[in-house]
Amino acid sequence: MRIGVAGLGTVGVGLLKLLAANESARKLEGLAPILVTGVSARTREKDRGVSLAGAAWWDDARDLATSDDIDVFVELIGGSEGVAKDAVLAAIAAGKHVVTANKALIAENGRAVSEAAEEAGVGLFFEAAVAGGAPVVRIIRDALAPTKIQYVSGILNGTCNYILSEMERTGRPYADILSDAQELGYAEADPSFDVGGIDAAHKLAILASLCFGTTLSFSDVVIDGIDKVSSDDVAFAAEVGCRIKSVAYAGLTDEGALAQRVQSTLVPLEHPLAAVSGVFNAVTVDADPVGRLMIEGRGAGEGPTAAAVASDLYDIASGRFAPPLGAPIHTLRDAAPAPDAERVSRYYLRLTVSDLAGVAASVTETLAEHSVSIETMLQKPPAGAGEEDASPRSVPMVIVTHPCPQRALRTAVAKMSDLGFLAAEPSVFPVESA
Amino acid sequence: MRIGVAGLGTVGVGLLKLLAANESARKLEGLAPILVTGVSARTREKDRGVSLAGAAWWDDARDLATSDDIDVFVELIGGSEGVAKDAVLAAIAAGKHVVTANKALIAENGRAVSEAAEEAGVGLFFEAAVAGGAPVVRIIRDALAPTKIQYVSGILNGTCNYILSEMERTGRPYADILSDAQELGYAEADPSFDVGGIDAAHKLAILASLCFGTTLSFSDVVIDGIDKVSSDDVAFAAEVGCRIKSVAYAGLTDEGALAQRVQSTLVPLEHPLAAVSGVFNAVTVDADPVGRLMIEGRGAGEGPTAAAVASDLYDIASGRFAPPLGAPIHTLRDAAPAPDAERVSRYYLRLTVSDLAGVAASVTETLAEHSVSIETMLQKPPAGAGEEDASPRSVPMVIVTHPCPQRALRTAVAKMSDLGFLAAEPSVFPVESA
Repeated sequence: MRIGVAGLGTVGVGLLKLLAANESARKLEGLAPILVTGVSARTREKDRGVSLAGAAWWDDARDLATSDDIDVFVELIGGSEGVAKDAVLAAIAAGKHVVTANKALIAENGRAVSEAAEEAGVGLFFEAAVAGGAPVVRIIRDALAPTKIQYVSGILNGTCNYILSEMERTGRPYADILSDAQELGYAEADPSFDVGGIDAAHKLAILASLCFGTTLSFSDVVIDGIDKVSSDDVAFAAEVGCRIKSVAYAGLTDEGALAQRVQSTLVPLEHPLAAVSGVFNAVTVDADPVGRLMIEGRGAGEGPTAAAVASDLYDIASGRFAPPLGAPIHTLRDAAPAPDAERVSRYYLRLTVSDLAGVAASVTETLAEHSVSIETMLQKPPAGAGEEDASPRSVPMVIVTHPCPQRALRTAVAKMSDLGFLAAEPSVFPVESA
Repeated sequence: MRIGVAGLGTVGVGLLKLLAANESARKLEGLAPILVTGVSARTREKDRGVSLAGAAWWDDARDLATSDDIDVFVELIGGSEGVAKDAVLAAIAAGKHVVTANKALIAENGRAVSEAAEEAGVGLFFEAAVAGGAPVVRIIRDALAPTKIQYVSGILNGTCNYILSEMERTGRPYADILSDAQELGYAEADPSFDVGGIDAAHKLAILASLCFGTTLSFSDVVIDGIDKVSSDDVAFAAEVGCRIKSVAYAGLTDEGALAQRVQSTLVPLEHPLAAVSGVFNAVTVDADPVGRLMIEGRGAGEGPTAAAVASDLYDIASGRFAPPLGAPIHTLRDAAPAPDAERVSRYYLRLTVSDLAGVAASVTETLAEHSVSIETMLQKPPAGAGEEDASPRSVPMVIVTHPCPQRALRTAVAKMSDLGFLAAEPSVFPVESA
């Protein structure tokens, strides 16, 4: 099996190393060798620490994609549009199987690309696009094919999880940890795709389509970045037995609408996702009649991602094919997006109020007027908190509500703002059930 | 695709329900329907709450296995020998694909059965044989095929895990919890296969072969049951920051020998397996270059096991085949068993000593003579402990060692026994690294 690899960054180089290391084992097992017969990247002159001998060089990935010298096109360029998309579509049109690690491409143009692959009768695989080394795509697509999935939730971005874990461990503010993470290579120079929740939303949109047989609808994902999480929030979360995580969730409502969201969320310590720390990713699926399943692994990096790409190549070499999104395109259902404002959940609310007698009573009254009832209320700054206070005369007031519709809470908070209680922008995060 | 199901217990009935429920979805997706055209069980007259219409009845599973009316034989009878083995071999000889949930059959006769399937060119699948609803077989066989696995470890028996979890939660002794578990249906009337570690050892032997490309060698698994764990041990484990779990482990030594063991083990609370509670199973794999991967799910029961069987049937219906043990039989390597006595680990040692001045010094001296050094020593009974003391005048003495070869510790303990220090049989369990 001859493959062309477009994109020779970390993952591309990792893939070449892994395939070279495995060649003798495949020979022993009587499997078809996987030969890299073509490569393409932006710069030809560069020592990548791996041999490119035997592989033809292509300046343009689109030419590699349609070359007669390859059977499978591996796209590691990235981006939802441009060269990556053009090359993948060209490869499919030329009858090549495609393996990609490109979550943006699949999340935003997965329907067009999958439809093209289906029509051309070629394979399209993207295990590496979601959760790196944790093989969640094939688990949902193959292992859970006989089940009915209730929801999928997970920690899908290692950068966010690392930053939040470090904020908790050190008590230091978001901006400091982010800048350390950038120095350590755990965050990009422009971190907005990661910390803004876009990357996790791409992965979530793919999982949702696989889980529920719905059309990909990345634009419907409700997205909150982690930049709104302060070290005060992290400290208060600990006081109520929780840890703040960027949780991605997708599920169907009773009416068949599709909820998709990436949100900073208070996760109780006894919840399985609470223990997922640092650069790990984890996905929890509740599938009838299997029950809860969880898979955890390294979410990114050379090794995990290259191994995921290689596992797809092994499937192709072994003749194991499946529809890219788990089911034929024409069977995918357009689901209405579930309105996030109607979402019933417990909520964490951190207010910064002027230190005036009577404000606490007014806050609770305002919540009561909007039928929001209080589970826990903290009025003292937690140990180590206070550094981000809006003014020295303001005090934090933290409330965890009983389950209520988000709309009711937002309306109550807007009313408080109108009444002039609030000395700073309030924090509102959902609280996961245990 | 026409299937014959032999064995209509919980899993068989669950499978028939699941396939019936999924028929319309498969039709919509243009997939071959999976039709149950034959069934076999011990008793024909019995209301199983599921329709057997359309399926021919066979008194003998071996006749169903070779019937012209089926393409795939599903073996849910159980047992490593007898009807299950005969029927599976007969089905293979007749050119039928086989799906089985029978861990004993695969662990003890997997080589013969896999070889027969390979020669006949039929599929042999057993996802349901290991960890029920957690799809570990296909993860190791397919997703991790490009990787080099360092070790696999896991919690593979829900009955053991439930009993140990309950012992910790309630502080009650093993025998009481076991008898409750039998009443609740979490333990069999004859629980010896589960609590004795045989069931977990069957699953471990299968995982080891898949992970390391070694021949199945169930008889080499070092097996310790959980019946040696007392409520004192559970309480002392908590005092040293651990939880006792029945941990199955397989790994290659530097010399290429294969260590396989199922042992009651002290697991530090921060270890990922410590959080796996009740009837859940979990498997951790360390695979180069992926790193650590963990998967957790319900280990048994109608739903999870039936869904695992169904996922194998879907693979067959979709033409996705793989060698049963991940690689052709002739490539599997015979690995020498790693001697358990040479295993270097931290160990937990609970002695019951007569309450005499000087004994503590003699114990530590004896350990020192055998180069066993002490990490932690507790000489007071923990809260709630003491109920299982050998005599009112004896006191417990608990030691956690630094890493040492098991042989050194066992020799030192034998010496203590010879010297008359010990008022009861000592407990020795390994302690997992964090």
